[in-house]
Amino acid sequence: MKSEFQFIQHIKDRFSLASVGDDCAVLPKDEVSDLLMTADLLIQDVDFRLEWAKPADIGYKSLAVSLSDIAAMGGTPRWAMLSIGIPKNLWNNEFLDEFYTGWHFLGEKFAIELVGGDISSSPDKLVIDSIVIGEVLKGKAVRRSGAGSGDSIYVSGTLGAAAAGVLSLKEGATEHAYLIQKQLRPTPQVELGKVLMKLGIATSMIDISDGLSSDLAHVCEASDVGAEIEVDLLPIDSGVKSIFPDPDEALRLAMNGGEDFELLLTVDSDTEGLIHDLPLTRIGTITDSRTLELKQNGSIRELLPEGFRHF
Amino acid sequence: MKSEFQFIQHIKDRFSLASVGDDCAVLPKDEVSDLLMTADLLIQDVDFRLEWAKPADIGYKSLAVSLSDIAAMGGTPRWAMLSIGIPKNLWNNEFLDEFYTGWHFLGEKFAIELVGGDISSSPDKLVIDSIVIGEVLKGKAVRRSGAGSGDSIYVSGTLGAAAAGVLSLKEGATEHAYLIQKQLRPTPQVELGKVLMKLGIATSMIDISDGLSSDLAHVCEASDVGAEIEVDLLPIDSGVKSIFPDPDEALRLAMNGGEDFELLLTVDSDTEGLIHDLPLTRIGTITDSRTLELKQNGSIRELLPEGFRHF
Repeated sequence: MKSEFQFIQHIKDRFSLASVGDDCAVLPKDEVSDLLMTADLLIQDVDFRLEWAKPADIGYKSLAVSLSDIAAMGGTPRWAMLSIGIPKNLWNNEFLDEFYTGWHFLGEKFAIELVGGDISSSPDKLVIDSIVIGEVLKGKAVRRSGAGSGDSIYVSGTLGAAAAGVLSLKEGATEHAYLIQKQLRPTPQVELGKVLMKLGIATSMIDISDGLSSDLAHVCEASDVGAEIEVDLLPIDSGVKSIFPDPDEALRLAMNGGEDFELLLTVDSDTEGLIHDLPLTRIGTITDSRTLELKQNGSIRELLPEGFRHF
Repeated sequence: MKSEFQFIQHIKDRFSLASVGDDCAVLPKDEVSDLLMTADLLIQDVDFRLEWAKPADIGYKSLAVSLSDIAAMGGTPRWAMLSIGIPKNLWNNEFLDEFYTGWHFLGEKFAIELVGGDISSSPDKLVIDSIVIGEVLKGKAVRRSGAGSGDSIYVSGTLGAAAAGVLSLKEGATEHAYLIQKQLRPTPQVELGKVLMKLGIATSMIDISDGLSSDLAHVCEASDVGAEIEVDLLPIDSGVKSIFPDPDEALRLAMNGGEDFELLLTVDSDTEGLIHDLPLTRIGTITDSRTLELKQNGSIRELLPEGFRHF
């Protein structure tokens, strides 16, 4: 079965869609700025479960995932739209009020103005399309396509916590509140993204939504390069390590779990000195081989993009 | 049960959302232009049926409804995003290819560039969020809120054909191909909207999506005015009249059927002379009464907003 990534490439080729395929579309705004636009479709029982998340959590996360896309280009989010398809059984209660409260809790932190959208009834599942529009200095949006051989690969924060949070929710293991919080209320790395854009040192950037292995594969494909990740360098979340003493299991969550919404970026070795104060961890190197590899204890094995895919 | 219009007003008030509530959000772009942004959520078995519409028809109409929103503000559409949630049974066939072909057929007519969006799996229903971004001369977007007492009310095209098309589809009455075409492939009035914006004579404008009665009510509420519609002036589609010889039934379709995607606008009597060459029909007058009335054979009755609503 073709993946959604293959389908997007097919549609790009067929209709010559030059702007499609990064975290955001980059459009001309004025003399000093470009616009950034992103849309994220979240569907009940695919992207969230009403049994696991409160309405306010769903509202918060709907915005967070789109802010993370703006962060991944180094932009400043400004405006948002929300399209919501809602089943009749959720219409006549507090659901949407709480949903919007969670959305605005995060929106106020980043001074996002909600400017429009749509509301429709839905036969059974709750459907949310989160649209965010941002700005970035003209020509300075950090794309997926700029990684070069020899660049160092960095990641912000820790890896695997959001995926471990899903497992805790599935098992009803409420003692891991911190991991569940990382799943339900991720922090979009907007400020860090802006700092990296201003420093001008990231040759490519993406947010970790599908999972490090898949998102790294997106960067390498867009940049026509390969990568070597050093397992011992990976900042696997300490909470993940404590629940999964088997290092292979912890590694799988860190590489493929997804939804950490951390930034994954590449940096030219010439400018690498500029990032020593930033909360980033070096995890590997870009190569010219077009393959993804995992290096551990002196041995090297292939790294497969096994993050989340819809199809 | 509260309608979606009441809910939107509630959210507007609660979070002080000044930009919400017109056909498009108007955002600052540069020295000479504003941005227009609109999103339309279309859900299978609510907004379309796979039994009635070909995939290419659904693609075409997804774009048409959003272009119509841009037209209603007098703007020029430029870019679009598509978020699609698709059930697995539609993924592995020609569905999306045909959908995008229909979308691009209309997109090319208006030189719209598809710049992004999202693709997700959906548990059962096909879900489409159509996002269009346009431009309009700075400060010149035609809003719903400018109608004044004494203004004439105009409508483009004819009324009721799209709704009659739905009835034909429901009954399998394929002999009314023209009405079905009006339902499946509506023509967004982009060029007419631009002309009206440039002439600067429309004091308010909206597109007829929910139905004339409801869309007129939106304009009157936003403008804090009332309206008197003269039944004998209404350009009820001749195809509608031929199928529904009962004039009351034809009138109901014209007033409440919706999806004609024609423009409904108000014009100050001082500038009314400027529109004599445009394909518009005068159908009534704005009043200061805050009520909507239908005038027929010398008698007046209340006009209730009985167009489409989700809740």
